[in-house]
Amino acid sequence: MLPRHILRVDQFSRGDLLQLLAHSAEMRRVVAAGGDKRLDGKILATLFFEPSTRTRLSFESSMLRLGGNVISSESAEHTSSAVKGESIEDTIRIVEAYADAIAIRHPLAGAAETAASVASVPILNAGDGPREHPTQALLDLYTIYDELGRIDDLTVALVGDLRFGRAPRSLAMLLTRTENARVLLVAPPGIEMSGDVLAYMETHGVAWEQLHDLEEALPRADVIYMTRVQKERFPSVESYRRVSGSYRLGSEHMKLLGENAIVMHPLPRVDEIDTLVDADPRAAYFRQARNGVYIRMALLDLLLGPRLLTA
Amino acid sequence: MLPRHILRVDQFSRGDLLQLLAHSAEMRRVVAAGGDKRLDGKILATLFFEPSTRTRLSFESSMLRLGGNVISSESAEHTSSAVKGESIEDTIRIVEAYADAIAIRHPLAGAAETAASVASVPILNAGDGPREHPTQALLDLYTIYDELGRIDDLTVALVGDLRFGRAPRSLAMLLTRTENARVLLVAPPGIEMSGDVLAYMETHGVAWEQLHDLEEALPRADVIYMTRVQKERFPSVESYRRVSGSYRLGSEHMKLLGENAIVMHPLPRVDEIDTLVDADPRAAYFRQARNGVYIRMALLDLLLGPRLLTA
Amino acid sequence: MLPRHILRVDQFSRGDLLQLLAHSAEMRRVVAAGGDKRLDGKILATLFFEPSTRTRLSFESSMLRLGGNVISSESAEHTSSAVKGESIEDTIRIVEAYADAIAIRHPLAGAAETAASVASVPILNAGDGPREHPTQALLDLYTIYDELGRIDDLTVALVGDLRFGRAPRSLAMLLTRTENARVLLVAPPGIEMSGDVLAYMETHGVAWEQLHDLEEALPRADVIYMTRVQKERFPSVESYRRVSGSYRLGSEHMKLLGENAIVMHPLPRVDEIDTLVDADPRAAYFRQARNGVYIRMALLDLLLGPRLLTA
Repeated sequence: MLPRHILRVDQFSRGDLLQLLAHSAEMRRVVAAGGDKRLDGKILATLFFEPSTRTRLSFESSMLRLGGNVISSESAEHTSSAVKGESIEDTIRIVEAYADAIAIRHPLAGAAETAASVASVPILNAGDGPREHPTQALLDLYTIYDELGRIDDLTVALVGDLRFGRAPRSLAMLLTRTENARVLLVAPPGIEMSGDVLAYMETHGVAWEQLHDLEEALPRADVIYMTRVQKERFPSVESYRRVSGSYRLGSEHMKLLGENAIVMHPLPRVDEIDTLVDADPRAAYFRQARNGVYIRMALLDLLLGPRLLTA
Repeated sequence: MLPRHILRVDQFSRGDLLQLLAHSAEMRRVVAAGGDKRLDGKILATLFFEPSTRTRLSFESSMLRLGGNVISSESAEHTSSAVKGESIEDTIRIVEAYADAIAIRHPLAGAAETAASVASVPILNAGDGPREHPTQALLDLYTIYDELGRIDDLTVALVGDLRFGRAPRSLAMLLTRTENARVLLVAPPGIEMSGDVLAYMETHGVAWEQLHDLEEALPRADVIYMTRVQKERFPSVESYRRVSGSYRLGSEHMKLLGENAIVMHPLPRVDEIDTLVDADPRAAYFRQARNGVYIRMALLDLLLGPRLLTA
Repeated sequence: MLPRHILRVDQFSRGDLLQLLAHSAEMRRVVAAGGDKRLDGKILATLFFEPSTRTRLSFESSMLRLGGNVISSESAEHTSSAVKGESIEDTIRIVEAYADAIAIRHPLAGAAETAASVASVPILNAGDGPREHPTQALLDLYTIYDELGRIDDLTVALVGDLRFGRAPRSLAMLLTRTENARVLLVAPPGIEMSGDVLAYMETHGVAWEQLHDLEEALPRADVIYMTRVQKERFPSVESYRRVSGSYRLGSEHMKLLGENAIVMHPLPRVDEIDTLVDADPRAAYFRQARNGVYIRMALLDLLLGPRLLTA
């Protein structure tokens, strides 16, 4: 059913997603019951050519919770044969001799597809540069599903850096698989959502509008998806200071947000959500991080597990 | 019984310590019998924001010997979201989604307590800057217990850098939980034991005296606890050279040491114990390193294991 | 039967090798059957004081395929107590408290022997500087055995950097344990095979000749063993360019190679084998990488496993 490699969000049909969400919910029950042994004897290699402790540990925890094993390279950019000029293709052809699946993180756009083009084992894209980070988008959708009980009829506000942030781009694309979605775009000038994603949403029937104000979005949204606005995107510290305050969520904003709405963030956070918000039950971002384990377990199980158990 | 997080030595009452020492002895038997599966399905995360291969591998070996699993960050200071400005609190709230316990090492004093203040899983302090390294102190006490058969009525000589070394400070504090302890302090001028620890010993009934000579301490001590005197602590290489020789243990000193006494060292050693001493049966420092596994197994088992087995 | 530590290729008699090759073939069947639990409860420490993701992951995969566990230091040169001046001997005496075997990689020639001189657990040399990398040589021999069905009556062409490359040196030495071997040496001036290895082959009855041309070797060889010619070995980029082309294998060369011959390479490859060659069934280098798992499983099993199972 599922694609053989997990590379991009546009690989997933609505049917795939519904299956995956249901299977992730099952994985949550597996963890609550103390884990499982269905991937006993299987090995996942995590090959990180760019640091990301959080994503790596999430993949590794997912594999272990299902009884599998892990081999890992935390800083492959310094320690692997890539230093000597080895191609990604060669690296994969070697590492697939050691593992039953490979989660790869690489600074180069398209690196995961290159890996998949030669791999005889499943490749899981754990982020390839500015391009894709599909498991993040999938866990975001699962979080919505788990928190709100549905993936349809949603108004989702994407806030912050919508141009360079992979997470809001991917979530916007994934929302085209849901019904009757509306996306509110709240970004500083210069880092608005790019035209290709806007066109993709339009083609697939997702309504969108650009707002200037977080305050405007709050009362209307089912989901506030915050992201970090990085200083480096701005021509001067001045121009950064002028806008960044408008894209920070404080506890005063929570009064404007609907009772059943949630706040999400791909994390890490710096100061774009005040820590005072953390105690609010609608602050879903730490639960969201936890959901990464369930989604990755579901993917690993569907890719590697015995079919009978995963049907 | 035990505290929920292992943060400081002063958390442990005499009763706690006696329980822990007995449980560590039990863990030694578990290892001798080829390990155990009582933590099957549990995951320990080792988050090291400062390098320490030895401490990390000791924690990881302890978890594996009990049938548990490990996820690990060897250089979290370079690879984790801390680089992007994430707080320790946020890091912990995310990693606790991946693991059942977290061993953290951090250069900042108090980092482990900060971690524990938000954690829903047990935090084990694997060293927070100059402050505390409680599992080192506990394995030191276990070594004394295992080697000498008792923790009371001891004369312990602490030798070397007593100001900046965490290990002798913590051991001195832990000795307040034993009866009738006497501490001999042998340190170069400028790096003597600091006043707070002297006061703490006094308040809790531990007798101490300052000696100038290692030779003076040797015939009186049940335990010689050596530590490294670092060049960097001295104003000049000259002044370092003048004193450092007096805090080195050579094979000639072993004649002055009692037949049933032992030599300990938190390791790594550079040249403060002559390698000729290694063959002496009273040289306990490599056995001491091994005891780290038993103490950490005991802690992990008491924190994570089924209560029935650990009672 | 086997040596207690795996340090150098000259430790292995012909009888040892035949046993090891047979056991590696058995390990291939174990992997095909989904792995095994015969090293359940055992721990392998991989201590890498020099980066080599490929070798480290191969050792770790081998241990996991047999049901064992792994503790690992990817960059021990930065994170271990070696930074503080600890000797290799002390490091080993500590790490052996955490593991049942230690695979060590170190930039210093002889480091593995130093480790073995104090170790109470088996040491596996995963490469000690320019000196030895015995598991590479053993997997090379296993590849020949597996691909050609024999280790005797072979003509092996070693091509490229024969002076500084550990792999061709070690393979040449290992061929002295086979019968009726002939070695063709094809190297640029200045980096020819060194005299000690030539003498060793002569003493042990291996015929060798030096050729100037890869083309000359191709029709005669059962095995073409390619290695990388590194720019840094040459006095100028000019002189490198002049020769390097003659030591590259392109698809045009494959017509000159015998139908049953194979091409090997220790990898990583940069451009010394054209990627067009990869699809040729005689291109054995990726299968060779895979064989590293079987050889290392065989060694770990023979060193750590229950004797009955490994007889």
